Amino acid sequence: MKGTTPTMKDVAQEAGVALGTVSKVFNGLPVGERYRVKVEEAAKRLGYQVNQYARGLRSGKTYNVAVILPGVDHPFFAALAQHLCAALMRREHRMLLYVTASNPDAERECVGMVRQNKVDGVIGLTYNPLELDGELPFVSIDRCLGPDIPCVAADNYGGGRMAAEKLIELGCTRLAFLRTGSASPSETDKRGDGFEMACRAHNIPYDALRLNDGEDFRRFRAFFQEHMAAGRLDIDGIFCSTDLLAWRVRGMLAKLGVRVPEDVQLIGFDGIRRFGAEELYCSTIVQPTQKLAETAVDLLLAKDRSNAPALVCLPVSYAPGGTTRE
Amino acid sequence: MKGTTPTMKDVAQEAGVALGTVSKVFNGLPVGERYRVKVEEAAKRLGYQVNQYARGLRSGKTYNVAVILPGVDHPFFAALAQHLCAALMRREHRMLLYVTASNPDAERECVGMVRQNKVDGVIGLTYNPLELDGELPFVSIDRCLGPDIPCVAADNYGGGRMAAEKLIELGCTRLAFLRTGSASPSETDKRGDGFEMACRAHNIPYDALRLNDGEDFRRFRAFFQEHMAAGRLDIDGIFCSTDLLAWRVRGMLAKLGVRVPEDVQLIGFDGIRRFGAEELYCSTIVQPTQKLAETAVDLLLAKDRSNAPALVCLPVSYAPGGTTRE
Repeated sequence: MKGTTPTMKDVAQEAGVALGTVSKVFNGLPVGERYRVKVEEAAKRLGYQVNQYARGLRSGKTYNVAVILPGVDHPFFAALAQHLCAALMRREHRMLLYVTASNPDAERECVGMVRQNKVDGVIGLTYNPLELDGELPFVSIDRCLGPDIPCVAADNYGGGRMAAEKLIELGCTRLAFLRTGSASPSETDKRGDGFEMACRAHNIPYDALRLNDGEDFRRFRAFFQEHMAAGRLDIDGIFCSTDLLAWRVRGMLAKLGVRVPEDVQLIGFDGIRRFGAEELYCSTIVQPTQKLAETAVDLLLAKDRSNAPALVCLPVSYAPGGTTRE
Repeated sequence: MKGTTPTMKDVAQEAGVALGTVSKVFNGLPVGERYRVKVEEAAKRLGYQVNQYARGLRSGKTYNVAVILPGVDHPFFAALAQHLCAALMRREHRMLLYVTASNPDAERECVGMVRQNKVDGVIGLTYNPLELDGELPFVSIDRCLGPDIPCVAADNYGGGRMAAEKLIELGCTRLAFLRTGSASPSETDKRGDGFEMACRAHNIPYDALRLNDGEDFRRFRAFFQEHMAAGRLDIDGIFCSTDLLAWRVRGMLAKLGVRVPEDVQLIGFDGIRRFGAEELYCSTIVQPTQKLAETAVDLLLAKDRSNAPALVCLPVSYAPGGTTRE
């Protein structure tokens, strides 16, 4: 051994592996178990000290990506977190998860972390205005934050149109659109737009009730009561902006003695499955959750981010789940 | 300005705030928005460069904690992730989430990260043997990995006993315990033990069928068919090791024409709610998920870890959810 401090190159030579393999082991990235042991033993023999911070100073990369989600207790966000984590790990990155409960301070803190070089970038599903610029590696999900920030979303407009066309195809003649959600503008608002445009294109009468989070949920019940005539609902097809709302609406309709799908057919949006992987809750427009996650990761880690599209819409699909006649 | 490189002390003076406030801002920890702006503007004026790696070299702390979970698509793990993240953020730490799908390589990689000082510690719900020692800050959930590794779990034994006693109290006279799960030994195995001991203590006859993941699920159906006599089930109370299994069992019973809770009462374990926060799926023994997360974080970040208990069991509770007569 030379009398000087051993380098990574020395470790590679001692272990009989490529320099890149040593680098991977020292960066905590996946390599074959056999190689990991070889490198670690060689490093031990040479007295090589792995120093993560010194390494960071050299490469300027952290291999950490911050993911901002309002929560993971909702199954759509949980699935998104799961797929984001898997997609990042496949690209040899790790996920710092921020559950913000839509708290603006928590969301801002996250952006501060990127500015301070603690993470390489951020993928965020946020509800509050953030101070962002084109320099900051940031990919938004479901919300356009500006022309320089790529946004990935399901084709919400197409999904809304698909819901209307499906209900019409299944024989519905009078439709309704019901919505709950954040008051902040979001790509998901297009679900209702697509639905309404399809109703107009097909000359089908429809009603709509849009509530923001925090508004009195009983207005939905009042809406149904207004639409009851001689013990029957005068609407025969309902599109709800989320599966969760469809689930709640189904409960309200049951209390009013309205049968689903016999009296009224119901389509939700998201594609949530019971326990994350069992049956669907309702007939629904399924979000391409895995593809959303993979696209967000690809856009964030792209070598050249200058040509990133402002908005990427990914195709949705219809899946029957017991609340429609098919 | 002095002609030398500005220090954090200079920034504090320039901003008119305490040194601790500057440190917090530079470490990406939460401070009042007003203070953050003051510090950032002062740092800009002085040309102070925040350098995360140099800081890491000084403090030896990363404020990152790795959390290993098999997945977050299952609602129990999702709730655990959510509460762990919140508990870590309250303690000014961040959560690096590893979704491992019980993959031993992914679990080992995580432990490697701690050894390389990339995270301050690990909270893990793991299924594979890991090379751990008392030096490594590691807290296990639901599985005892050794006397030096604190393990946090619900009172699984007490929960199993509670399920048996509840079914007996509700009039059941012949019970069954059904189980699916990992073949690796886990604290959750005690659910069945507690149940069986309570049946014996009360002199109530019972049957048990335990399957490991991957074993043929149709054995449960065969079990029920064996217990059918003259079109009726000769069991009137069932305890399932998880809510998910209870949900599946309910589907099987419906197909056999057995009514729940009229013919047979059913209790699950976990306390899963639809969409993460709506109704329970079944009558169930509720895990104290938030308390589990907070206890794990407290044990991991404790200043003195030498006296950490090997196993902490947290109390569970019973909640009726429609599959029992109360």
